[in-house]
Amino acid sequence: MRFVRYLRDGITRYGMIEGLEIVELRGGLFESKISFNGVRQPLAGTQLLPPIVPVTFYSGTSGGNYFTHRRSHESALQPATPAEQHISYRANSALAGHEASVVIPPDSSGKVQFEGELVVVIGRTCRNIEPENAMAYVFGYTIGNDISERVWQKSDPTFWRSKNADTFKPMGPWIDTSADIDKMTTCVRLNGREVSRFRTGEMVFDVPTTISRISRYITLVPGDVIWMGTDDPTLDMYPGDIVEIEITGLGVLRNSIVAGV
Amino acid sequence: MRFVRYLRDGITRYGMIEGLEIVELRGGLFESKISFNGVRQPLAGTQLLPPIVPVTFYSGTSGGNYFTHRRSHESALQPATPAEQHISYRANSALAGHEASVVIPPDSSGKVQFEGELVVVIGRTCRNIEPENAMAYVFGYTIGNDISERVWQKSDPTFWRSKNADTFKPMGPWIDTSADIDKMTTCVRLNGREVSRFRTGEMVFDVPTTISRISRYITLVPGDVIWMGTDDPTLDMYPGDIVEIEITGLGVLRNSIVAGV
Repeated sequence: MRFVRYLRDGITRYGMIEGLEIVELRGGLFESKISFNGVRQPLAGTQLLPPIVPVTFYSGTSGGNYFTHRRSHESALQPATPAEQHISYRANSALAGHEASVVIPPDSSGKVQFEGELVVVIGRTCRNIEPENAMAYVFGYTIGNDISERVWQKSDPTFWRSKNADTFKPMGPWIDTSADIDKMTTCVRLNGREVSRFRTGEMVFDVPTTISRISRYITLVPGDVIWMGTDDPTLDMYPGDIVEIEITGLGVLRNSIVAGV
Repeated sequence: MRFVRYLRDGITRYGMIEGLEIVELRGGLFESKISFNGVRQPLAGTQLLPPIVPVTFYSGTSGGNYFTHRRSHESALQPATPAEQHISYRANSALAGHEASVVIPPDSSGKVQFEGELVVVIGRTCRNIEPENAMAYVFGYTIGNDISERVWQKSDPTFWRSKNADTFKPMGPWIDTSADIDKMTTCVRLNGREVSRFRTGEMVFDVPTTISRISRYITLVPGDVIWMGTDDPTLDMYPGDIVEIEITGLGVLRNSIVAGV
């Protein structure tokens, strides 16, 4: 099943995709039983919002979660092979939907790059979960583009603006409740040309390990998202560019790059 | 005016304090006009929740926002006198209310400390605000206790567990819509004994500067909170301790320390 989030009459709605239509939900995504209110609308032409706004927005591994990416950003603080898994937080304020513009701040160096990522959406409250039980708490998956300003990132210990300026976290287009991570490929296209391709599942810390790690100290709740990191290459983007992230079975997250004023 | 958040019949409510009572609001805190639904209940005996759950939870200055505290935690990455202001994010999942227990995780070193902080609550959406206009976007103020596990903190570049384990961010008891920051004192008591006292307003980066700084890159929205940092000393706490943060005019945030199992 695929679930979207959008506005109708100025109110945020959740819907399920059925063929070419959105079938609107009566309540939220995490009711004990999903029900519908009878409203349908075409998927085409509906402006999709980020499919969820989490209570807490987690990023899987500080310093990267794929070996090639870790080696290319290696430093004393971020060894290529991490001894233990450190989690990060991202800002909900930075979320943007499918087809939204990514705005490069006017005082940016201009070195703004994509990072195509698998996003895990938590479906049930959990605390102190072992890896072998972790997948039972996953609601589904979506796609994230972890937009990063590389010059700022070097002097931004918390990544507060280098990775969290407005619109720097596109997420979508929808949440798909099923996925076979070992069979997935993440593919990034810039203006239609493939520029990055990697096996989605070849992570340093996989999804069950990450959920288990977080849950040892923190209660995960329905709607929380965990961005699982990217692999190299990550390339510069410029105003006018169109960036697409495709992950097998999860669709395509497409955003345009524009210059802020 | 003072506003609280609490549960009644299992539903989250907002209320205004009137004498010894809570007068319940019809909607949320940020309606264009506040209205009441006629329900009243005594303040005493009402279990208060954190007065707001923000969209994004900001911490004012990475490395500390008071000079004495910065000097005592000085490092190459965190100079005592910061050249520029770096913002951090904290996890909504870590929020706890007034009178809630702070739970020390079972594998903690035990070196868990308080940090008494002024918390700014944003009331109106703002972007690209100059410091001289920033205070118009403040809804009010509350108190935060930025609980920190000092041994973990040394090897936790994102502070993901050292400052964000469950219950490590008590906030409350209420939001007060008025404050004269220059005349405020922050006072911390451990088991009734005063252990820290500092002038709340003697910050490295003050409230208008911080709001302006964030808003240059990020849209602040109603309910967002900015924790403004603490000054030294910050001392160890142990299971059985009661920690109270009092800030002039904002009341007392009181929490007990318990050992996790």
